[in-house]
Amino acid sequence: MKLPEFVDIEKAHERIGKFVHRTPVMTSTAINQLTGSDIFFKCENFQKVGAFKFRGATNAVLCLEENLASNGVCTHSSGNHAAALALAAKQKGIPAYIVMPESAPEIKKKAVEGYGAQITFCKPTLASRESTLKEVVAKTGATEIHPYNNVEVICGQGTSAKELVEDYGSFDLILCPIGGGGLLSGTSITGKAINPKGKVIAAEPEGADDAYRSFHANKLIPSVDPKTIADGLLTSVGEINFRIIQRKTDEIVTVSERGIVRAMRLVWERMKIIIEPSSAVPLAAILENKVNVSGKRVGIILSGGNVDLGKLPFEELI
Amino acid sequence: MKLPEFVDIEKAHERIGKFVHRTPVMTSTAINQLTGSDIFFKCENFQKVGAFKFRGATNAVLCLEENLASNGVCTHSSGNHAAALALAAKQKGIPAYIVMPESAPEIKKKAVEGYGAQITFCKPTLASRESTLKEVVAKTGATEIHPYNNVEVICGQGTSAKELVEDYGSFDLILCPIGGGGLLSGTSITGKAINPKGKVIAAEPEGADDAYRSFHANKLIPSVDPKTIADGLLTSVGEINFRIIQRKTDEIVTVSERGIVRAMRLVWERMKIIIEPSSAVPLAAILENKVNVSGKRVGIILSGGNVDLGKLPFEELI
Repeated sequence: MKLPEFVDIEKAHERIGKFVHRTPVMTSTAINQLTGSDIFFKCENFQKVGAFKFRGATNAVLCLEENLASNGVCTHSSGNHAAALALAAKQKGIPAYIVMPESAPEIKKKAVEGYGAQITFCKPTLASRESTLKEVVAKTGATEIHPYNNVEVICGQGTSAKELVEDYGSFDLILCPIGGGGLLSGTSITGKAINPKGKVIAAEPEGADDAYRSFHANKLIPSVDPKTIADGLLTSVGEINFRIIQRKTDEIVTVSERGIVRAMRLVWERMKIIIEPSSAVPLAAILENKVNVSGKRVGIILSGGNVDLGKLPFEELI
Repeated sequence: MKLPEFVDIEKAHERIGKFVHRTPVMTSTAINQLTGSDIFFKCENFQKVGAFKFRGATNAVLCLEENLASNGVCTHSSGNHAAALALAAKQKGIPAYIVMPESAPEIKKKAVEGYGAQITFCKPTLASRESTLKEVVAKTGATEIHPYNNVEVICGQGTSAKELVEDYGSFDLILCPIGGGGLLSGTSITGKAINPKGKVIAAEPEGADDAYRSFHANKLIPSVDPKTIADGLLTSVGEINFRIIQRKTDEIVTVSERGIVRAMRLVWERMKIIIEPSSAVPLAAILENKVNVSGKRVGIILSGGNVDLGKLPFEELI
């Protein structure tokens, strides 16, 4: 299979441009002083559905052939991809069928329902997800859109870094988190094409470090029982994603759970924006000195802002 | 005393322009659908020190005569004005002396110290604050900058609504919270001058409703033992502020504590930004149908984003 190139990301950007937000970029004097660098945060937490995932899902839906599209799209996801695909399908006027584990966070169930998708619940195992999805496909004829191991999805995700470089110039480093690798593979293609003197570095939780191990072993080593607060990064790297990452990503580093929480809190406190734990992983890598940013111009993609605020003691505040 | 006019706010804006952020304005499709209106949120939570207060403090500091300025400035405040005055003084290169109750939130003590101000702690009573401040003035010769009952402060606060109207056109309604009345008096002057067909409406917590009662009785009735989660709105309306509000504000409404928490959570969840409880009061008024916004174009000034996140269970997340 031919791997996607930057020209495919340019086409994706044209295709999705009027459906996605060109998200703002924020800076923080306090965080710059703390890290000794100039950091530009690309705020995908302000993207529709609250995550970059809407870029890839929209591109995938818009790439469907018309005769297939009318049957709808489907996926199994407990996270942002489910909401992203639901809204992308709604905007296109086609059905979306989402297989979700019963254990998925309330906020994500509500979001998916709110976008008009049909949810089928399954047991919280990969086997149950996959068998339930097969049943849905057999019944509806919907096209499965994989959350990351999908060329159109990858090209959509690569448009965030494209906007960042177009709007703010070149960077010494571009950082993003790595879970399944959709964002990192797209970002790496974009980085090498339009920011060739800079590096693309991914950060991953220690407790879900399959990408780190795979990258350094030069072969795919899936996660076994990963554990991290960064719930968007529990998945193992996809095959297509890994082939791109091997060729285009400069480095993958890992961070501690404590570092993720510290970085997330720092962003909430100093930047006054809500980011989810997965989004905090690149800044955690900087704070834990896993990446040297001293005196450098750094772009960080804040991947999303969907935190289950039901866990916060709002009611106790009264 | 001559009350300030819009020309004074224009001069203040020129004076402070290069020191303050021209804060962004955000919208939310979800909140627009929920309320049946078009709401433009002016994000003073992204202002320096995390609150609109930096506008007024900066204007007051820049208006000082040079021979007085070198002695520094002082105030008693447990809140955003303390941090705002500290940073404004630092930027001007003069000392700031802040009298704070021992009970002030940690985040605010740290912020004020971080900006290089000298803190004198006092008992958490108005009498102790005032007597301690007098001692500080006697010792240092610093000029007291009142948090709201001060013409230069009022003119600085009026620049936020000025930017909102300049950047986003006219509004049917402009809403802001009311505590001491610095923001409301400045906003009302601006509103009547450059958005004359629109109304300026303030929202206040039921548990600290002195402005509401004063406005409707047409005389100042200070709060007795006010209680609200909106800690920025506990103060009673100032005298200068009230004279302006009587002339220029169209309406004051009150909201419940539950409404404030609901509105704050809605903004965190759907807009992915951190606002403090005081900032949520105008949206609470809309959600509680105290203000009819149906089909209207509404500007809301989100006053600040300083929440003590130490109360959130971040560490439990690990």
